[in-house]
Amino acid sequence: MKNNIAYYAVIFTSTHSENTEGYDDMANQMETLAKAQNGFLAIESARDSIGITVSYWDSLEAIKNWKQQTNHLVAQQKGRQDWYNWYKVRICKVEREYEFFKD
Amino acid sequence: MKNNIAYYAVIFTSTHSENTEGYDDMANQMETLAKAQNGFLAIESARDSIGITVSYWDSLEAIKNWKQQTNHLVAQQKGRQDWYNWYKVRICKVEREYEFFKD
Repeated sequence: MKNNIAYYAVIFTSTHSENTEGYDDMANQMETLAKAQNGFLAIESARDSIGITVSYWDSLEAIKNWKQQTNHLVAQQKGRQDWYNWYKVRICKVEREYEFFKD
Repeated sequence: MKNNIAYYAVIFTSTHSENTEGYDDMANQMETLAKAQNGFLAIESARDSIGITVSYWDSLEAIKNWKQQTNHLVAQQKGRQDWYNWYKVRICKVEREYEFFKD
């Protein structure tokens, strides 16, 4: 299946500091909250030596609103203060996709 | 730091089958090979319940060439046959990025 589509991805890549107290609870809360936002499409997340979370949105405006959501701002502040040594955020336009399912 | 930039990301999300024999070796080989391609910029990868690998490229042509690289085609075939239950590939244009470093 191939599609020419247009939606948006936020690629959030990070490394943790040694202080991750409270991180898991906050990450779960933020995932629940993200899913409740207008324009939210999906979220995928994995962590081993680095963490990668990709969230998908139907517009740049939805991404902007999510970035500025009040509880999310608190989480971002806490993340910079305590949980992350480094992170990088990339805002992307998804231009093409294809998918494989095992028979 | 904020930039308006333009390069490309390939978001590869996957779940493994029960047969992952040979997967780690092949994944390492493919990472080494990807890094040697023209137009390669960076790669980030994490796996727990799902795997997410994001590779970054300077053009759509570089992505196309990498997709069609001979040894990579063999790995893709082997992946569909043995290692993956599911994967999804998204080709994205990175439009904006910002980064945080702990002081």
